[in-house]
Amino acid sequence: MTEGRDILYEIHDKVAIITLNLPQVYNSLNNDQYLLLGKLVERANDNNSTLFTLIQSTGKYFSSGANVKDISLDFNVDVNNDLEETKYWLNNFTSRNAYLTHIFYSHKKILVGALNGPCIGLTTGLVALMDIIYSINDEDVFLLAPFANLGLVTEGGIGYTLLSRLGLSYANEALLLSKPIHVKRLLQIGFINKNFQFKSNQVDQFNKSVLKELLNSSINLESESILDIKEIIKSNYLKDLESINSKEIIIGLKKWLKHLPQERFKKIASKNLKHKL
Amino acid sequence: MTEGRDILYEIHDKVAIITLNLPQVYNSLNNDQYLLLGKLVERANDNNSTLFTLIQSTGKYFSSGANVKDISLDFNVDVNNDLEETKYWLNNFTSRNAYLTHIFYSHKKILVGALNGPCIGLTTGLVALMDIIYSINDEDVFLLAPFANLGLVTEGGIGYTLLSRLGLSYANEALLLSKPIHVKRLLQIGFINKNFQFKSNQVDQFNKSVLKELLNSSINLESESILDIKEIIKSNYLKDLESINSKEIIIGLKKWLKHLPQERFKKIASKNLKHKL
Amino acid sequence: MTEGRDILYEIHDKVAIITLNLPQVYNSLNNDQYLLLGKLVERANDNNSTLFTLIQSTGKYFSSGANVKDISLDFNVDVNNDLEETKYWLNNFTSRNAYLTHIFYSHKKILVGALNGPCIGLTTGLVALMDIIYSINDEDVFLLAPFANLGLVTEGGIGYTLLSRLGLSYANEALLLSKPIHVKRLLQIGFINKNFQFKSNQVDQFNKSVLKELLNSSINLESESILDIKEIIKSNYLKDLESINSKEIIIGLKKWLKHLPQERFKKIASKNLKHKL
Amino acid sequence: MTEGRDILYEIHDKVAIITLNLPQVYNSLNNDQYLLLGKLVERANDNNSTLFTLIQSTGKYFSSGANVKDISLDFNVDVNNDLEETKYWLNNFTSRNAYLTHIFYSHKKILVGALNGPCIGLTTGLVALMDIIYSINDEDVFLLAPFANLGLVTEGGIGYTLLSRLGLSYANEALLLSKPIHVKRLLQIGFINKNFQFKSNQVDQFNKSVLKELLNSSINLESESILDIKEIIKSNYLKDLESINSKEIIIGLKKWLKHLPQERFKKIASKNLKHKL
Amino acid sequence: MTEGRDILYEIHDKVAIITLNLPQVYNSLNNDQYLLLGKLVERANDNNSTLFTLIQSTGKYFSSGANVKDISLDFNVDVNNDLEETKYWLNNFTSRNAYLTHIFYSHKKILVGALNGPCIGLTTGLVALMDIIYSINDEDVFLLAPFANLGLVTEGGIGYTLLSRLGLSYANEALLLSKPIHVKRLLQIGFINKNFQFKSNQVDQFNKSVLKELLNSSINLESESILDIKEIIKSNYLKDLESINSKEIIIGLKKWLKHLPQERFKKIASKNLKHKL
Amino acid sequence: MTEGRDILYEIHDKVAIITLNLPQVYNSLNNDQYLLLGKLVERANDNNSTLFTLIQSTGKYFSSGANVKDISLDFNVDVNNDLEETKYWLNNFTSRNAYLTHIFYSHKKILVGALNGPCIGLTTGLVALMDIIYSINDEDVFLLAPFANLGLVTEGGIGYTLLSRLGLSYANEALLLSKPIHVKRLLQIGFINKNFQFKSNQVDQFNKSVLKELLNSSINLESESILDIKEIIKSNYLKDLESINSKEIIIGLKKWLKHLPQERFKKIASKNLKHKL
Repeated sequence: MTEGRDILYEIHDKVAIITLNLPQVYNSLNNDQYLLLGKLVERANDNNSTLFTLIQSTGKYFSSGANVKDISLDFNVDVNNDLEETKYWLNNFTSRNAYLTHIFYSHKKILVGALNGPCIGLTTGLVALMDIIYSINDEDVFLLAPFANLGLVTEGGIGYTLLSRLGLSYANEALLLSKPIHVKRLLQIGFINKNFQFKSNQVDQFNKSVLKELLNSSINLESESILDIKEIIKSNYLKDLESINSKEIIIGLKKWLKHLPQERFKKIASKNLKHKL
Repeated sequence: MTEGRDILYEIHDKVAIITLNLPQVYNSLNNDQYLLLGKLVERANDNNSTLFTLIQSTGKYFSSGANVKDISLDFNVDVNNDLEETKYWLNNFTSRNAYLTHIFYSHKKILVGALNGPCIGLTTGLVALMDIIYSINDEDVFLLAPFANLGLVTEGGIGYTLLSRLGLSYANEALLLSKPIHVKRLLQIGFINKNFQFKSNQVDQFNKSVLKELLNSSINLESESILDIKEIIKSNYLKDLESINSKEIIIGLKKWLKHLPQERFKKIASKNLKHKL
Repeated sequence: MTEGRDILYEIHDKVAIITLNLPQVYNSLNNDQYLLLGKLVERANDNNSTLFTLIQSTGKYFSSGANVKDISLDFNVDVNNDLEETKYWLNNFTSRNAYLTHIFYSHKKILVGALNGPCIGLTTGLVALMDIIYSINDEDVFLLAPFANLGLVTEGGIGYTLLSRLGLSYANEALLLSKPIHVKRLLQIGFINKNFQFKSNQVDQFNKSVLKELLNSSINLESESILDIKEIIKSNYLKDLESINSKEIIIGLKKWLKHLPQERFKKIASKNLKHKL
Repeated sequence: MTEGRDILYEIHDKVAIITLNLPQVYNSLNNDQYLLLGKLVERANDNNSTLFTLIQSTGKYFSSGANVKDISLDFNVDVNNDLEETKYWLNNFTSRNAYLTHIFYSHKKILVGALNGPCIGLTTGLVALMDIIYSINDEDVFLLAPFANLGLVTEGGIGYTLLSRLGLSYANEALLLSKPIHVKRLLQIGFINKNFQFKSNQVDQFNKSVLKELLNSSINLESESILDIKEIIKSNYLKDLESINSKEIIIGLKKWLKHLPQERFKKIASKNLKHKL
Repeated sequence: MTEGRDILYEIHDKVAIITLNLPQVYNSLNNDQYLLLGKLVERANDNNSTLFTLIQSTGKYFSSGANVKDISLDFNVDVNNDLEETKYWLNNFTSRNAYLTHIFYSHKKILVGALNGPCIGLTTGLVALMDIIYSINDEDVFLLAPFANLGLVTEGGIGYTLLSRLGLSYANEALLLSKPIHVKRLLQIGFINKNFQFKSNQVDQFNKSVLKELLNSSINLESESILDIKEIIKSNYLKDLESINSKEIIIGLKKWLKHLPQERFKKIASKNLKHKL
Repeated sequence: MTEGRDILYEIHDKVAIITLNLPQVYNSLNNDQYLLLGKLVERANDNNSTLFTLIQSTGKYFSSGANVKDISLDFNVDVNNDLEETKYWLNNFTSRNAYLTHIFYSHKKILVGALNGPCIGLTTGLVALMDIIYSINDEDVFLLAPFANLGLVTEGGIGYTLLSRLGLSYANEALLLSKPIHVKRLLQIGFINKNFQFKSNQVDQFNKSVLKELLNSSINLESESILDIKEIIKSNYLKDLESINSKEIIIGLKKWLKHLPQERFKKIASKNLKHKL
């Protein structure tokens, strides 16, 4: 198990802190690491003493998404056996995304993201499922959902959450055109709650300040009220989000079975396709 | 009846003006006064000659919410008789909130709020049900929904309206963390339509200017069209709002029956709990 | 057929360009011209080689809405024959709006609007159905939905789209009070994606720059992914939009049958009613 | 105007009676007659003294649907002019169906159908929008929605109402396979409220008995309560129905523009296509 | 407290049994008794050892609804004081119905009704919220929702549940025309799960058989699965039900404030109005 | 690949016929066989010449559900490694159910089931997703959804479809109490369209008759109309179905991770738990 190395988990007072700790690969995550992230969020959910689940990161990127270079992923899986290939992508794509998205949107605590840098791909979908989002004060912070660039479709429920949180115009730019949405815009539109006055080389101070902010925020709050209010708010949109999740996990599968993302990733690797960054 | 003293009602051309007139208690309202507010909004609804229902206030606060110090409220009601206690809070909490929320969201005229100062609690829920919202130009104007601070849950449908009008990030800050949302942010995000250039000690001029603005706005408008357009717009979200209202009035009741808000209010009274202001 | 004169259609690489070309009447459109617009959007939809459908315009206005001065419209139609009058407005109002709104919200490509100037009436409804919206950098650009001013109700699904894209406060101002929403606010609130640095007398350069922007945006995007993502996003709200469209086309009809808009248009023509501009 | 001849309208106590009176053509209706039906239903809606709107018929059929042999319908309309052809079918199909469907589902009184015989096509859609449905006791009574047989799609909201009232299995048989649903099944499944013991040659007695049943039923009922209860019930499904109506009126239009129904009707006329009866 | 006398509560293995025990008044319930019923259902909800909550009755009627003859209800309340009268009916109508309906539809166990005889009024609404419904084999068993007869509107969410469980035709007969729905029809349409072969004078044996049936049914079932499945099923319709509940509790209030039901009840008492039985 | 042996696929005129061909194990299916079923349904979907997709079976059972005795399933997977165990059940439960359910509800042709005998478990969920359902005339035909008996939750969207197709009372019996629903009831309630007069030992004749029925039904139907009508009907409920699917695939996973079904299956194998048949 890679917990305690790739992704850290600790309890600080009322806050469960989950830290992406793979700065050398820009916190890209392979399938096992994504599942581990889900398991740790579940663990935080089951902890009766916490109120917040804070997901923070290390290094220059919050997360650069799925680690497609990871040796555990095999693009050349048995393409002559349709059934085997379907199973492969069901197990390496559909089930991971179904699970992670569910774990995030069914989380009962206040889910907080601390964006220390850019966030890309599936992780952007997960960030868009968080309740409260803070960022470091660096104009290079952005969210990127490059699914159209990669021959995929939206993931992590982002086909619902971005529309709802950014409005149609920006959501379309981000999702149809794979455009990054920069921190300035995210602040203006109210997607990011607050910008902390640290630079990208001050991630530790940023993370500590976010933690302090949460601890201060929670003084005198009644936890039972918070959990109930969160459930009331979520009841507004849960059905819509579940419906989009249902679509995304199978329509995305079909793209893998048509080899669209495989070709895109190969081109990126061979420098014949400029990545959307 | 306290109409004409605690809450004023007058017709000015096409505008029914309802004025909260309890500046000495920051326009906190006891149960009877909240019901009176509802009855006056109903009266405005039934007036065939008006187009706008303007709710304005006096003094430093638009409204500081429920007046829990009011002698008519008895926190020590028969706690040894579960049935009696349930009846007490059904009658002093559930029925009031069910009624007021319905009266506001079923209002047919253009419902306008003129925020002369901060607004807190249930009244914040009612403001969030208004069609058009103006504010005085004072950085101390804010909305506060301190339900998590008071051991309660959201009221007045605000579990729906804030999500819809502020976006998830700000709504969560306001509702899960009981944070005030200040006028600057409310303007930026488009919750407040317009800021009038008066200070907090110029409430009369502010209220007059809002009235003038409405009268000017209504020149050459066809009332029948407006009422139909409002009904069309409302049909988008009425079901969601009714559903949240249904939850809020009973989940809140259960908090009173668990004595969470009673303990909170006692602590506040004894200065052992810092209020969220 | 007026294609190639009143409204132009050309394919430029991945972009189908539809140009409103009636600058002398501020691109107001009569019924046939609106239908033609719909047919051209359908044609773009069926073109397998394009990814974008760009709707641009000429002269000072993007479009000033329905051309009510057009000789083809007869306000005095057989008012003594209820059945004939109903047929007349069904055919000259209901069927046009039902068709156009459907054609726009069922469009599969990325639908882009290039606002070279103000946009009024039904065309504002159509703009609010577009995926991505750019504007020229001129403070006189605005959207106007003067239906309450004209004795009508909302058209083109705008009773849904403005609420969703502007928030309740601004949508109410625009729809209940027929207030123009100016470009500055549209940018701030994220309705307009980007402002191009051209003035109102540089429409050609503006249109060329928008085209260039789209061509640049589409480099390295997978079309199949885009079409699927758009369908996923649209599945969030299509039912709500269809429901509003259903209401608008018949409630509007009833206004014509009560002669409210006819009287309003006559007053405007005779200068006895100040138009909302 | 054909009222008083083709379709009769009379008030009997609390009941507005609308009678289809074209037994010689099996109460098939041309476009003007369908519009007239809509106008009469509107008139009944506006009558303050009635509680029921009873739609009954004459002869062997309740209604055999649209009268496609009517000389007013021109299948050969200008097929070389796409715009003109679109206008033609917008005016002769889309607008009629949009209007009629809306008039029926927005009706405020208790809408009662008295099925004296088979009902086919668009009229079946209208029957499925009625609140209470009675039938004569004849095994040849059936509902038929032969849209798949005619190259069309569902009309009158029947894509929603049959699913809701018959369940998926029967709705699919009726709509996908154009199968008639016979009175026995309609009674068993609870679509028809009650079967009156008259035969198909006793239509007058049947109609009189239905009227008597309604008058008896309404003794001691509070009209205001009924209207409010109907509105409460309708609020459960109105949005879904409006959404389906929006789809049906334009997807059907596209079938006419592809000439599918025209070819089908020609084949039927030339006996080369066996009609689904 | 009247528990143990008016309404009985006992635990039998996995079944919490709640027995209406006022056969002398046909199990009509006054406000306190309805609240007590709600509290007992809540108690059953909180019992970790039970799986079923069985509501059964005694004597000839399951329940004849609200006991309007009860001396605790004052029809002549302060009709000259609108505010006081509003409070009176909020407290004696709105809050009771809001609470009871919520308690029933938020119940987590399998809620079973054993109909030993007719059921009328608000209790019919509660029965329609139950998961599984058994009846005695007596043709006089019926459900009656006489709200239109009494100048009221639907209660207990029955404006949603009857539509959903009986289909539109029967729901309309029951709710718009206040017609009783008899056991034969309820069985045929699948509203009642099963008819037990006992007559109306064998209530004890019937109740015992129902209990035995439940105990047999629950052998080898996994409780956690059942609770989760119930929650999954309920998520299909909870929002719709909450929305209807929100409407019913305030629209009904308005009827009391217009004195419609008061007049009806007076007429019934004076024999001038034939009750719908 | 086991196609052509375990599951057969053939085209007969307008009908793609998929035959479950494992009568020796009562057509229970292991994971690979379920995926194969999905792939064949997809193949039928992509065949431009067919209108119907008929799923039929062989032997005494239509299908007895998941083959849990299949050696490919390992109940003892690495229970000491939470991450590995989660992956195991994601891949052997969640991904299969997500995929199959999606394939069935996104199928564009008329999906027909021919029930030659009982149907159990996941396959019952799939049957409930079919458009038209026929059965052999044998009183032993039943549907069983024994998820509560097996420590699981509903699968294949049956938490939505049974409620919608059987009504709440019967759906609750079937899903909460794991009761079989027999053919007689299914016919009465309109779940099964038609009963063919063959006995359980005449499966071949039954299958041939169903095929003949479909071929006869399709005479003179316009395929394009049928596909569009099916899409219109499906748009009524697709979102609700997707939402339930999203819940079922993860809540079921959690049951496996809690070892509830494993223990149940072990008890059944050791005869200590009487199966619900």
